[in-house]
Amino acid sequence: MNALVTDIVGAVAIAPAPPVSRVEAFIRSTTFDRPTLVIDTQIVARQFAALRAGLGRAHIHFAVKANPAREIIETLVGLGSHFDAASRGEIELCLSLGASPETVSFGNTVKRASDIAFAHNAGIELFAVDAEEEMDKIASNAPGAQVYIRLIVDASQADWPLSRKFGCARDKALDLLAYATSLGLRPVGFSFHVGSQTRRAEMWTTTLDQVAEIWVQAKAAGYDLDLLNIGGGFPAFYGEAIDHPTAYAARVIELVTERFGDVPRLMAEPGRGMVAEAGMIASEVLLVSKKSDNDMHRWVYLDIGRFSGLAETEGEAIRYQFITERDHEANGPCILAGPSCDSADVMYEKHPVQLPLGLKSGDKFIIRNCGAYTSTYSSVGFNGFPPLDVWVI
Amino acid sequence: MNALVTDIVGAVAIAPAPPVSRVEAFIRSTTFDRPTLVIDTQIVARQFAALRAGLGRAHIHFAVKANPAREIIETLVGLGSHFDAASRGEIELCLSLGASPETVSFGNTVKRASDIAFAHNAGIELFAVDAEEEMDKIASNAPGAQVYIRLIVDASQADWPLSRKFGCARDKALDLLAYATSLGLRPVGFSFHVGSQTRRAEMWTTTLDQVAEIWVQAKAAGYDLDLLNIGGGFPAFYGEAIDHPTAYAARVIELVTERFGDVPRLMAEPGRGMVAEAGMIASEVLLVSKKSDNDMHRWVYLDIGRFSGLAETEGEAIRYQFITERDHEANGPCILAGPSCDSADVMYEKHPVQLPLGLKSGDKFIIRNCGAYTSTYSSVGFNGFPPLDVWVI
Repeated sequence: MNALVTDIVGAVAIAPAPPVSRVEAFIRSTTFDRPTLVIDTQIVARQFAALRAGLGRAHIHFAVKANPAREIIETLVGLGSHFDAASRGEIELCLSLGASPETVSFGNTVKRASDIAFAHNAGIELFAVDAEEEMDKIASNAPGAQVYIRLIVDASQADWPLSRKFGCARDKALDLLAYATSLGLRPVGFSFHVGSQTRRAEMWTTTLDQVAEIWVQAKAAGYDLDLLNIGGGFPAFYGEAIDHPTAYAARVIELVTERFGDVPRLMAEPGRGMVAEAGMIASEVLLVSKKSDNDMHRWVYLDIGRFSGLAETEGEAIRYQFITERDHEANGPCILAGPSCDSADVMYEKHPVQLPLGLKSGDKFIIRNCGAYTSTYSSVGFNGFPPLDVWVI
Repeated sequence: MNALVTDIVGAVAIAPAPPVSRVEAFIRSTTFDRPTLVIDTQIVARQFAALRAGLGRAHIHFAVKANPAREIIETLVGLGSHFDAASRGEIELCLSLGASPETVSFGNTVKRASDIAFAHNAGIELFAVDAEEEMDKIASNAPGAQVYIRLIVDASQADWPLSRKFGCARDKALDLLAYATSLGLRPVGFSFHVGSQTRRAEMWTTTLDQVAEIWVQAKAAGYDLDLLNIGGGFPAFYGEAIDHPTAYAARVIELVTERFGDVPRLMAEPGRGMVAEAGMIASEVLLVSKKSDNDMHRWVYLDIGRFSGLAETEGEAIRYQFITERDHEANGPCILAGPSCDSADVMYEKHPVQLPLGLKSGDKFIIRNCGAYTSTYSSVGFNGFPPLDVWVI
């Protein structure tokens, strides 16, 4: 029995509608004049609690870049979260909203020297580093600071694997620990990243094995490491099954403990896993067309695209799910594109999406679980369109 | 003899330095606290004059999306340019800076209905369209307006070929003319796009042949077409030889006239070709590193990346040129990356760039000819970084 609610007067059997979230109910009942991300901080709090239950004694450093909305940071400060900041701007945001400097790590391995000095003067004590020159900058601008070395790990099984952009190869890790010591810095441990949207906890094992090998070598070489930063990778639901966040996190910690024992300071940096499911975008269909009468698929153009919030559709990597008011109608394959005059502003083409045949210009179009990596990716005014608006309920 | 200027006191033979543009001189003598696009409107004016000399009686509609800086629009209004607007925002911008509504075309084939009504009420008379539903929206919101049909053309030889996102297939073109008439609109002609950065005028021939075939069919079917919009594609210099804009434009018009005769209303929409060479970005090196001591190449991290202005490096499509203060030193291959904690924020990796071996954190790094498609692509605050700043000299 499907969820179609019949409107025949006097019908006795009404199929139950699926539960509608606060965000969805709000979007359905509200008129927007531009694409708008609607966030529910209750869901952020729920995800924090679920992750904390699984992560146990590991400190959660929310990856601020995933969504720096004031209300999200305030909610997480109130719950005792720590923070992973990518820039001076993010550090200022967290501190201004009540985070203590000792709960904020400066996790970008590429920092402007003056921003390191700013962070140091603001009381930030913990910095990520993956290269000698970065170590020099930290030694000059944050003398005596604690540093952890970001390691490159091999190809992961994440939906969005990371490049070699961050981290040093394993053959350099011990040299960087020695270099930190020689500069008067305090090398405290390692960090790594399994890759964004790693859907199953078991996918962490290969990466953890690689990092544990270096960890053991460093301990054997006499380094008194006490910090392991396991980074992010905690998944959100985009249509493919994922574990409950508590079970997922607990299993990751179990895998970590098997390999590293009781590390005094464990850090985890969920971003997507914390906020993606807390938000939906209220969008609108601008045009539905066929390029040729013989085409098998339609083109559906929205008022939001790759340059106004949906940057993670690049390469069709993240596949969002949609809600329309015609979801009970018959579907057909569509190419989904954004509103700009940019030919690259196409979200899904190689793998078209199924959308209602009756979809038309003016229809409301809700994009599910896109609370992460949308609002701040939005361009400042490409094609004269304003940036993605953000409302918090 | 190279351009190295020796600083040995008393040296008699000084190699002549290459001519330095106003923008370059300004950037070299100025300290910036964030990545900044510096624009010279004199170069915009020079490009406009050069293109007009070649385009003859064709109207130049500057593609505002390429760079909507107020001073650029004001300069072009003063020179008698027309404008191609992608959105209500761009229309408002042009009108507020003195453009007459009859000189502005609404060239986006994907328009919000309320924006069509706004444009119509503001006096805009000319709209692009490629689908029935768009025609319906125009008929309802801009009754009696002039429309031109955007055509899909086959794979071009452009450096950045366009997708099928815009335009209708040729088998639909005449049907759309008929449909426009049936709705009380005035179908006046066709538009197409040869693809961005089409480096040689001769590369236009295949596309023009395709469009001319439909043009002839439409005339034969009794449509009184008087407008041909040849779109953009006018190239900028990114290192590979291009023709002088006047010669290029004149040859394009020659190729058009050979196929279409004396079209009463010719339109061209240069964007990149008008403004790319008018701007340089003042950037800074944040970090130079090697991932492993055995690596052949270095990683160079700038304070600007794909999400803060250099979006056109996607797929390494547009290859910018650089100026550093060490260009007289020996070079070596580098991967060039942006400052964000995003693994996709890498500009050139498959084809590394040659950069001075002595390059280091804090060095000024000038990106040449990037006045087009940079400032507005910039994200509103990704990773806590502010958007690309724009200064006009």
